[in-house]
Amino acid sequence: MADLHAWLETHLLKLNLVNEMDYEQGFSRLSYTKEEKQSHQAFQMIAQSLGLTTTTDQAGNQWATWTVKEDAPTAAVGSHVDTVKNGGGYDGVAGVLTALAAIKILKDHEFQPKKNISIICFASEESARFGVSTIGSKSISGLLDKDDIAPVKDAEGITIKEAVEDFGLPWEKVGEAELSEQDLESFLELHIEQGTQIEDNQADLGIVRGVACPIRLQVKAVGMANHTGTTPMNRRFDAFAAIAPLVAFVEEQASLLNREQDIPLVATVSTVQLEPNVMNVIPGEVTLGIDIRSVNDSLKRELADRIAAYCKKIEEKRSVQIKINTLVDNPSVFLNPQVHERLTHVTEKMGLKPFTMDSGAGHDVMNMAHKWPSGLLFIPCEQGISHHPKEFASIKDLAKGSQVIAEYLKEETGEGH
Amino acid sequence: MADLHAWLETHLLKLNLVNEMDYEQGFSRLSYTKEEKQSHQAFQMIAQSLGLTTTTDQAGNQWATWTVKEDAPTAAVGSHVDTVKNGGGYDGVAGVLTALAAIKILKDHEFQPKKNISIICFASEESARFGVSTIGSKSISGLLDKDDIAPVKDAEGITIKEAVEDFGLPWEKVGEAELSEQDLESFLELHIEQGTQIEDNQADLGIVRGVACPIRLQVKAVGMANHTGTTPMNRRFDAFAAIAPLVAFVEEQASLLNREQDIPLVATVSTVQLEPNVMNVIPGEVTLGIDIRSVNDSLKRELADRIAAYCKKIEEKRSVQIKINTLVDNPSVFLNPQVHERLTHVTEKMGLKPFTMDSGAGHDVMNMAHKWPSGLLFIPCEQGISHHPKEFASIKDLAKGSQVIAEYLKEETGEGH
Repeated sequence: MADLHAWLETHLLKLNLVNEMDYEQGFSRLSYTKEEKQSHQAFQMIAQSLGLTTTTDQAGNQWATWTVKEDAPTAAVGSHVDTVKNGGGYDGVAGVLTALAAIKILKDHEFQPKKNISIICFASEESARFGVSTIGSKSISGLLDKDDIAPVKDAEGITIKEAVEDFGLPWEKVGEAELSEQDLESFLELHIEQGTQIEDNQADLGIVRGVACPIRLQVKAVGMANHTGTTPMNRRFDAFAAIAPLVAFVEEQASLLNREQDIPLVATVSTVQLEPNVMNVIPGEVTLGIDIRSVNDSLKRELADRIAAYCKKIEEKRSVQIKINTLVDNPSVFLNPQVHERLTHVTEKMGLKPFTMDSGAGHDVMNMAHKWPSGLLFIPCEQGISHHPKEFASIKDLAKGSQVIAEYLKEETGEGH
Repeated sequence: MADLHAWLETHLLKLNLVNEMDYEQGFSRLSYTKEEKQSHQAFQMIAQSLGLTTTTDQAGNQWATWTVKEDAPTAAVGSHVDTVKNGGGYDGVAGVLTALAAIKILKDHEFQPKKNISIICFASEESARFGVSTIGSKSISGLLDKDDIAPVKDAEGITIKEAVEDFGLPWEKVGEAELSEQDLESFLELHIEQGTQIEDNQADLGIVRGVACPIRLQVKAVGMANHTGTTPMNRRFDAFAAIAPLVAFVEEQASLLNREQDIPLVATVSTVQLEPNVMNVIPGEVTLGIDIRSVNDSLKRELADRIAAYCKKIEEKRSVQIKINTLVDNPSVFLNPQVHERLTHVTEKMGLKPFTMDSGAGHDVMNMAHKWPSGLLFIPCEQGISHHPKEFASIKDLAKGSQVIAEYLKEETGEGH
């Protein structure tokens, strides 16, 4: 055990490209940047040291495979290593690290799988750079519409196409990482919970049933810019004063919907852009970004409808035009009951307490689940803090996760399967 | 008259560096940029064509002088040609253009002044680039604290010191444009009203009594960033949801104070910055910029106090810390009664209707008034729209303004004065 803990500590640092985890600014390895690539290289080196064969596919996903027979079925496990800006060192990395650790455990135990095992380190999971998430797993599962995202730009004006090519991948082939149903037998992802339900329910691990995919709205209010000093209060078309009450409304209605029924819903006004955003000009245009999530799709729709109705009221009361643009509206994904059962079974066999829950965050597994029987395992993270430099998961919980994956792989790839 | 109209039309285009005034994107000649410099060069060429002598001072102000005797007193008239981003072609330019046109009128009339006349084209009046306004006129009137503003940066990270030096001026000397009281006898600025009081009062021109200088607040709310999908509504420290109601509060309280008493007050939440401002992260920090103006300084203070009290309430109700930083708190400036009287007199003599009013916007004249007897003349602008591509003042009103300045200069610099 001490050996596993030390291994996890060392390789957690390696995947994060650091000598210690305590960084005030957190970690910034945005999609298709050299920082993501460096972390991919660390993944390859660790995998090779475990005796795995590493390859890179057309979307930049890293594969590390334990091949027992070329044409044997393949069980896959994995996650990602890219991060948001100033994010934590566990979101993504925890899944890649524990998958690698599980291989180490199996090899230490001299386990002989009957099937191939692949660890996937997915490219570009976070939407922080381009507003597009899980690009690598979308490509593998055939869900990537590359023409749709080609013109998307990051904050510096670099298109995703340019970024992918700078990363060393021909843009034309980025969709060709797609695998057929026969190529994989199953998929498992481990991730930090990014919430506190495991802890709140005194459990050791979370086993996920459904992934709440978001509705994302862009609400644009157009009034008229004018001089702040010379425009009387009663002659203004201030887009910000008009739309700002929507921020509190979204929070209030989301809280209300949570009290009214059992399935959780969360909603956030997470972005804002003012035009021109200078001290002596009345805001002429405001764009808000709203993120709504629940595994109950009709609940998300209900909130989106309430937002639309509230915007209509603002339009009637004030001289601003409001336009709502639906950026994303993905139905929630339900994971495979057999994989869920196997995870529950091995967790309990190890004397650990599993907790069945839903995921409020999207993960690579939601794409993989479209094509292969898939599961998602959560380990706790301190106070549920994530996408933040203070994000933290303990080595003890990473070790528990590694052992559950190892036990799961034993059942999944051993005799009798 | 047709001659004057044509002259104004031609030279309005020249100062704006264009061939037609109708630009969808408006005009962007930010402080100490090559665009401001090009407009300064246009000013010099026009002034020279009128027989004036042009010089540039240490702060980059352009001077064009009609010298009758080296040691004669000097009456000054002027404004600026820099603009906000995507601003209009009249804010500033109107004052420089009409001052030049007044010289043309005086010369056409073969008027012989007994005093020198200087037209000043002030550098860097707008705060749009650095958040610092009226740099040129502050330097002339000895109000510039250059060490205080040296570290200020624009949106690209260029310091004001670097910008001034790129403009061709040694930073060390930028404060040395200061003149003594004896160097000028009086100062007059013409500006577009940027409001609709002249029109609302069926007058031709506005003659300003007081200039409302702003209180500017920076309100920073600090909560905690976290994942939008995994953080339940009751476990959030969303800085944006907490502070957003302040936007409506500021508007509502400003409107209330206007109804409660006679002297107008305006207040605007004109800027916002979210951290990290990405779709899947709850806003951890929000910074709002608030601009409050009235010629009644205690009224501005009253609103600032109400804002502080409201922020205290938010802090008590929600787990966010709020810090209020006073960026600017300048007392209002009252202009010279004799200059006001002279302007009223010449306006009425011309058969025009003057309207005595206050200015909600700051102008170069507010600095000049600290040292010299000063006046401010407003011409109407369409619908009060300013700092916007649709800003518009008619040639007819520019002609009226030019003639009032010419008549004023006749009285100011003629026999008997």
